Amino acid sequence: MSYIYFDQAASSFPKPEKVGQAVLEAITEYGANPGRGGHSLAVRANDVIFTARKKLAEMFGEKNPANVCFYMNATQALNQAIQGIQFEAGDHVISTSFEHNSVRRPLERVKDTKGISISYIQPDVDGKRLFELFENEINERTKAIIVSHGSNVTGTILPIEKIGQIAKAHNLLFIVDASQTAGVLPIDMKEMNIDVLAFPGHKGLMGPQGTGVLIVGDHVDLVPLIYGGTGSHSEDVGQPQKRPERYESGTLNTPGIAGLLAGIEEINRIGLRKIYEHEAELTSYCLNRLNEIEGIYILGPDGNTNRLAVISFTIEGIDIHEAAMILDQHYQIGVRSGLHCSPLAHSLIGTNEIGAIRVSFGLYNTIEEVERFIEAVKEIKSFF
Amino acid sequence: MSYIYFDQAASSFPKPEKVGQAVLEAITEYGANPGRGGHSLAVRANDVIFTARKKLAEMFGEKNPANVCFYMNATQALNQAIQGIQFEAGDHVISTSFEHNSVRRPLERVKDTKGISISYIQPDVDGKRLFELFENEINERTKAIIVSHGSNVTGTILPIEKIGQIAKAHNLLFIVDASQTAGVLPIDMKEMNIDVLAFPGHKGLMGPQGTGVLIVGDHVDLVPLIYGGTGSHSEDVGQPQKRPERYESGTLNTPGIAGLLAGIEEINRIGLRKIYEHEAELTSYCLNRLNEIEGIYILGPDGNTNRLAVISFTIEGIDIHEAAMILDQHYQIGVRSGLHCSPLAHSLIGTNEIGAIRVSFGLYNTIEEVERFIEAVKEIKSFF
Repeated sequence: MSYIYFDQAASSFPKPEKVGQAVLEAITEYGANPGRGGHSLAVRANDVIFTARKKLAEMFGEKNPANVCFYMNATQALNQAIQGIQFEAGDHVISTSFEHNSVRRPLERVKDTKGISISYIQPDVDGKRLFELFENEINERTKAIIVSHGSNVTGTILPIEKIGQIAKAHNLLFIVDASQTAGVLPIDMKEMNIDVLAFPGHKGLMGPQGTGVLIVGDHVDLVPLIYGGTGSHSEDVGQPQKRPERYESGTLNTPGIAGLLAGIEEINRIGLRKIYEHEAELTSYCLNRLNEIEGIYILGPDGNTNRLAVISFTIEGIDIHEAAMILDQHYQIGVRSGLHCSPLAHSLIGTNEIGAIRVSFGLYNTIEEVERFIEAVKEIKSFF
Repeated sequence: MSYIYFDQAASSFPKPEKVGQAVLEAITEYGANPGRGGHSLAVRANDVIFTARKKLAEMFGEKNPANVCFYMNATQALNQAIQGIQFEAGDHVISTSFEHNSVRRPLERVKDTKGISISYIQPDVDGKRLFELFENEINERTKAIIVSHGSNVTGTILPIEKIGQIAKAHNLLFIVDASQTAGVLPIDMKEMNIDVLAFPGHKGLMGPQGTGVLIVGDHVDLVPLIYGGTGSHSEDVGQPQKRPERYESGTLNTPGIAGLLAGIEEINRIGLRKIYEHEAELTSYCLNRLNEIEGIYILGPDGNTNRLAVISFTIEGIDIHEAAMILDQHYQIGVRSGLHCSPLAHSLIGTNEIGAIRVSFGLYNTIEEVERFIEAVKEIKSFF
């Protein structure tokens, strides 16, 4: 019985075959340091990295590939974004209670060190009410809106285009964490007025772990978080102004970026619409089938709403960690149990004490796998 | 004619075959998010990462594997170390003019933001005089000594054991950048009184790019640089105290770390002494042969001194970048030209304006390759 992987929201698996091949090729054929020497191997590494920047810029509506910066993961990218904002004491930021700790913890850090204040909006309301909530929180010291495009707990999608309009109208910096949506939903920084966009390479974009991206709009001047060798302007004692060097110090993860490039190419080949529709079909089917089982409590929106392929639920009378363990050990189905690094989201929906089981679907999951999962949940429920 | 790669100080190449295999295996067989779920794939990813921590701890004389933290590169590790020190305004740090920008730029950043002062010692002197230089700079506000174990420009090795004794005697934090020496020279944090050790995975340790390591001694309390999800303690608004989570946020580069583990195992199999002796033989041979050519000016120590397999030189009457290009294009030999991210070192040795050509050797380079390089340099010299 083959293993079913339903933890796609943490890291997508399996990857397209070309991803592993591209990584291996980088390691075995041109394992040189990109941008650190003009010899042939370094040039080839550099070419691959530049192509990846270019494809990512195109994909996310950014004109200048030099504004695409690579990190180890989305968390580092978000830290560069959030810790890099030139705040003054008393400045104010609006975020949401859906944020992952990769947004919340850097925000709280900046609150402590720079004396900013933060409003966390509860975004589980209809569009119109949501926009009012944002508008109501804006004051003269508000400097930025920072939101997750989609919740990694409930699958809720935030209307970032409209939130971007609000940000623009009030001249606020708009930062979006697309950790759950990059490679699934269309995102256009220009059209959506997004100033800074962060996302991982290893989730929806199908790249390997060890890759995260920050796209920093031309007009946004972030203070660098990491200082070091940039392969050029070595004589400057400070970090160079030139991008991407300003926000990228040290050797890049060339093999990882080569793999990410292969992932992006596969995503482009299939098309976002097809990917979203496939995941929506699995999600809708799973939600409907789960709803048939007594004692299953599902968090977040139903299957008729636009939502991500992430479903969190509890089973009455069964410890979530035990259920997840049985699913793994007995049924060979990998799911997550816990708070998923997003305590505020759980606090909001009343599962902060117990957490939830989370299943998340991806490109290569099938209806048959969802069906096997449903049967497993039914069996587990019947044992208790 | 096969390509000769003499840029090992930037990134080692080729890697042991097992490194690429281990990376590919991680991507294709257990591409899950380590520490982010108890399912089988995540457990396997976690096991590989724990084993890598354990082997690295053993290799560098650290008792607790949880003190081994992973980053994208040594630069990020060094930033965590240097920016993480709890400085007060007026504190003082001693470093050297050999430092790479990955040490110098974070130090200068901390100088600007926290108001510390920095003394850069010129370490190109004999042992006894060097220790005097350190002793002379220490004052009552001195808090740390931060040095590179070996220069990436001249190949000079610093006597870190003795410097560690000085640090200990004065109760100073001792931070070592082992970017050029990890995997080549023995380093024991305990014996050498090293409090914090940083190094890349992709140089001497033969891992893939995208890997850097910081080992933080038990007694050292650094302020985290990156904040975010840690897969545990999700309910805390702050970064957890527990290590390595405290210093590692977001998804780790599992494939990269799997590759690094394979690299370490290969280094352990061969043994550091054998690796150093092989590299020393190539270096000594190359230095002797270069010295026979008129108009070659070699920077740094000669072949009779303990030194690293890094040789920087200029050729009288020939632009270094042009020479490097000819070596690459015509002779298929990859070398570096420029300042190598270490302007202070060049400033010290009088090559700040022109830079130098650098060749650096590794595990798999051969005397025959060095000989082909020498013949090429002779030919180039004869053309001009």
